Amino acid sequence: MTSHDIASPYLIYLGDAAWPEMAKTALGLVYWRPERCVGQLREEGCKADVGLPDMTLEAAARAGAKTLVIGTALIGGKLPETWIARLVEALHKGFDIASGLHEPLASVPQLRDAARASGQRLHDVRIPIGPFPVATGAPRSGKRLLAMGTDCAVGKKYAALAIHAEMRNQGMDATFRATGQTGILIDGSGLSVDAIVSDFLAGAVEQMIPAAHANHWDVIEGQGALVHPAFAGVTLGLLHGSQPHAFVVCHEAGRETLLGFDTHKVGGISQIIALTRSLCSWFPHEVTCAGLCINTSRLTETEARAYLDRQAAEHGVPACDPVRFGVREIVEGLR
Amino acid sequence: MTSHDIASPYLIYLGDAAWPEMAKTALGLVYWRPERCVGQLREEGCKADVGLPDMTLEAAARAGAKTLVIGTALIGGKLPETWIARLVEALHKGFDIASGLHEPLASVPQLRDAARASGQRLHDVRIPIGPFPVATGAPRSGKRLLAMGTDCAVGKKYAALAIHAEMRNQGMDATFRATGQTGILIDGSGLSVDAIVSDFLAGAVEQMIPAAHANHWDVIEGQGALVHPAFAGVTLGLLHGSQPHAFVVCHEAGRETLLGFDTHKVGGISQIIALTRSLCSWFPHEVTCAGLCINTSRLTETEARAYLDRQAAEHGVPACDPVRFGVREIVEGLR
Repeated sequence: MTSHDIASPYLIYLGDAAWPEMAKTALGLVYWRPERCVGQLREEGCKADVGLPDMTLEAAARAGAKTLVIGTALIGGKLPETWIARLVEALHKGFDIASGLHEPLASVPQLRDAARASGQRLHDVRIPIGPFPVATGAPRSGKRLLAMGTDCAVGKKYAALAIHAEMRNQGMDATFRATGQTGILIDGSGLSVDAIVSDFLAGAVEQMIPAAHANHWDVIEGQGALVHPAFAGVTLGLLHGSQPHAFVVCHEAGRETLLGFDTHKVGGISQIIALTRSLCSWFPHEVTCAGLCINTSRLTETEARAYLDRQAAEHGVPACDPVRFGVREIVEGLR
Repeated sequence: MTSHDIASPYLIYLGDAAWPEMAKTALGLVYWRPERCVGQLREEGCKADVGLPDMTLEAAARAGAKTLVIGTALIGGKLPETWIARLVEALHKGFDIASGLHEPLASVPQLRDAARASGQRLHDVRIPIGPFPVATGAPRSGKRLLAMGTDCAVGKKYAALAIHAEMRNQGMDATFRATGQTGILIDGSGLSVDAIVSDFLAGAVEQMIPAAHANHWDVIEGQGALVHPAFAGVTLGLLHGSQPHAFVVCHEAGRETLLGFDTHKVGGISQIIALTRSLCSWFPHEVTCAGLCINTSRLTETEARAYLDRQAAEHGVPACDPVRFGVREIVEGLR
């Protein structure tokens, strides 16, 4: 097994989150996979609420929950002592624990010991489970779509999840492929590709997304951007390992500089389309830009529609805001 | 310290190499850094000879050797028992040991124990010494040249070493930057970039090649190829972390498919030039193709000269074979 495989359903742990916004991971889980989430567990003083029934560990166990998923970001990185006590209790009550936090669960001695004693599993989804092979670049059957971007954090995960959901909605056979920690928690499996040793990145992606039947779509969460000074190598390894037939370009309307890199411009949509195409020249098939997924949250609805119309006309492909208006047009174009 | 820093001079260990060709690393060392190599140590039956004086450990120590460098490839990967005994002896006699083999020296209990007992160092140059930062993409002073390629193993290391040597020869201020195990052994420092976790590759390269004065050239060994199905992500991370002002494209005349990937064509020279340029669009400076470094060993000398002339005319840059004819023209163009 080289991919995390997290048992569901989940009890979502919100800890004592000091602000509602700290529960972003939990909100993603509840939005995209409500059927996997039986309840939320909150400590005293918790300011977050993702709308699930509040449950004790005992109640959640009775409701069938198998994994306690940490759905809250941490400020400062260290797991609070009160959380550790609760997580130890959960292990002893028969829960696995899954976390996308920087500090691995397995690095906390109490958790390691409790997991060993109880026989339960600790899933640190940022840590890939190897070993991984070198990529072969061999053709493989099935169809694949990858989300590219003009920057990090422009909605590539959201776009891929929306396209996957719309494909299923239209009766197509499709699998979502998570490539980062939040996506893995949402979907219960996947690979944190940016944590893989460079030589094996493309090979790990090939292994995670094997051949499929001719009409099956793997819809792959993207990472980074081909113009990103720090992460472009990850983006290219993921592109080559994915060997997609189609890609979408994700962008945030109004974002002008790379997040955290204020002196660097975001990629242009045309630039990302052209770079992606030119880097796929060795593929055994054509690669098509299937559309643009644009986060228009800074615009009014009227502005957003006008913006999307302009982008669609300029690039000759459907332009959608997955959150506001859905991705129906992109998926119809792929059928 | 995040770069290997191997004490010289070296005693080159050839073990009981069954064929002369197994001593490729040693030959590179002797060719490029003869002043670092005081002698060779060969076991009974050794078929390799790199032309250095044969020395015992004692004689080499008297001659000032500080590190025993394993200069021979291994078939099968495991260190032979007879070698281990010799390496343990070397540690106890005051040598550090450096190796680019897949099996880390530090994974062999006898070597680990002897290193601890003797206080000597084991350099496993395939294993990068972190932690590494995320890249900033910030401009930095000094000039940098990177060797790109149409495939792996087309002479990128050789080209960079030749350009570095020619720069020094012409009185320019230059530093060679090794990015793979053989280059690190040759130069005594550097970073095995393909072994770095993807997220930190560009950052590690930025850290290895800091700002320098305006007329200083860092000449950087390249890795992989932008069209390589397995390693292009490494190539791009290295390109972005290097932020070069100039690049050369390395190619082997007559090679048509990627080494070990028989169904994949090597990159075209024009294609690599165009891809490299388009992926450097965010740099704060222009990036120039300074020339082509072509291995013409499959051609006669007359054929080689004609081939290089054709390539130079077609691409509008100097075309050299670093081994046969040197790289004078490329370096003169950079001055």
